Formats: sequence, structure tokens, C-alpha cells
Amino acid sequence: MTSRALVDALRGRGWTLAVAESLTGGLVTARVVDVPGASDVLRAGVVAYATDLKTTLLDVDAGLLADRGAVDPDVALAMAAGVRVRTGADVGLATTGVAGPGPQDGVPAGTVHVAVVAPTGSRVRTLSCAGDRQAVRSAAVAAVLELARQVVDDAAS
Amino acid sequence: MTSRALVDALRGRGWTLAVAESLTGGLVTARVVDVPGASDVLRAGVVAYATDLKTTLLDVDAGLLADRGAVDPDVALAMAAGVRVRTGADVGLATTGVAGPGPQDGVPAGTVHVAVVAPTGSRVRTLSCAGDRQAVRSAAVAAVLELARQVVDDAAS
Repeated sequence: MTSRALVDALRGRGWTLAVAESLTGGLVTARVVDVPGASDVLRAGVVAYATDLKTTLLDVDAGLLADRGAVDPDVALAMAAGVRVRTGADVGLATTGVAGPGPQDGVPAGTVHVAVVAPTGSRVRTLSCAGDRQAVRSAAVAAVLELARQVVDDAAS
Repeated sequence: MTSRALVDALRGRGWTLAVAESLTGGLVTARVVDVPGASDVLRAGVVAYATDLKTTLLDVDAGLLADRGAVDPDVALAMAAGVRVRTGADVGLATTGVAGPGPQDGVPAGTVHVAVVAPTGSRVRTLSCAGDRQAVRSAAVAAVLELARQVVDDAAS
């Protein structure tokens, strides 16, 4: 299970975690909570589903959201940075994307951006996922957990 | 599906929703997001897993948490009230409890408090759930969704 590998990697590094979610709607946080001992590392999760709350709850720049819309790699990075600061966590994760069916604000269904911000740097990854809403969400959850594990493992090496 | 009934009831009443979670770790919010058209009513979810973040993110009184611990009916009500105000939602839900195994701060595993705060009033319900962590969490998710549906339906009648 990817979330267990991430919790183990974080514990080994002495880092805490916070999660900012949009299309995944709490599934990333729930996957981390599933791991026994998750409370050692997890501080919080924020599902900013309405776009205005990405600013209110996560400090994403309102101008950036107005220019680019909510499904954008820089918005994903800003969400990860925001949840990290708001919760005092060492590492912030974020997901934003279009679960479908159909496009949203001109962005095709299946487009997903996942981001990780850590003390050692930040990374963002863009996916084009096939399948229905559930498949797109599952791919986004797996991608952000894997990207986070890579960032934490790279920091330890 | 209880979450679909809740989304329909909220839409019928013209009310929006926000969710504050502790032991359920994002599962309540994820269940609401699963419902097609959830974006009509859902504003946000906050998983305040670390106890200090129940104050920082949800405005739960720090003295109340110090006196009673995090697993308390009044803490559940304060979480629901806090997420409602922070997100500008009409209805706030909250879960807090001990998933187990074993007690936490002297509270037995399976103890769960779920709360709903709506414009028409607030309700809290306490459960003693049997089973493993997953069973306790599932019971908490079902209980808060059902309590919320009752509160919204009562308001409409």
C-alpha cells in the first residue's frame, strides 16, 4: 500500500504531513488515516471543494485562480504550500483536476495535477487519466501518494 | 445511499454543507463527493486529525479540549459549528471518536460522537460501536450522514 510506504518514509525522516484536496474529496487523507500509526505523522487534511475556499482555507492567490481556473499545476503547488503553512506540517500534498464526465472550464475530463511541497523542495506532476470519475480519482490518489514518497525518499538519500 | 439522500435534501432546502472530521479522516467528505451534483451543495471538508488543529482550523475552544479531550459531544458540536462558520456553509457536520484498538485518553474504543449544526438548530448523537477500526469508522460515517438528513428533513417539514 503506497500510503503505508509514505507514512513509514515520513516517520523515518521525522516529518509531519498535511493534505489539500479538490477532486479527490478526502480520499487521500482517508488513505493515510487507514495506516496504523498515521497519527505519528498526519496533522490534517483540507478538502477545498468550492473554488473560493482554495483562497480562504489554503491561501491560494485569488488572481491566479481567476487567471487559470482551479485545475492548474501552479494552483496545485499553491494548495500544497498553503496547507503546509496553515497546519504547521513539514510536507504538504495537493490534488486538483477534472473527474468528469465532461470538461470543466475548458479543461478535459481526466486532467489531474498533483503537487508536493517539502522542506527540500517541491514537485508537481500532470496526468491525463482515462475512465470514469472513480477511476480518475483513484489515479489521482495513487499519483500524489507516490510522488510524495519519492520526494521524502530523495530527501533521505 | 445515505449521502445521496442528504445531498438531495440539502438541494431541496437551498442549503450548502461543510464537514469537520477527526476519526473518519475524510471518509464523510469523500462519500458526499461521490454523489453526482455534490458540488451544488458541498463547500469543504476539514480533517483536523491533530488535536491542536481542532482549535487552529475549526475554532474549538482550547480550554474545552484541555478539560474534556478531543472525544466529547461538546467538541463534536464545536467542530460542526466551526467548520460552518469558517467555510460559510449553512450546515456543518462533525465526527470525533476512538477508532481503536484500545482506549484513547481513557475513552473506550468504539465511542463516537457525531454532530450537526444547521440554521434551524443543532443535534449531537453518541454511539458505542463494535468491531475493528474500519467498522467503527463506517458506523460513524453512516451515523453523521443520517443525523444530517434528519435535521435537514425536519427543517423542511
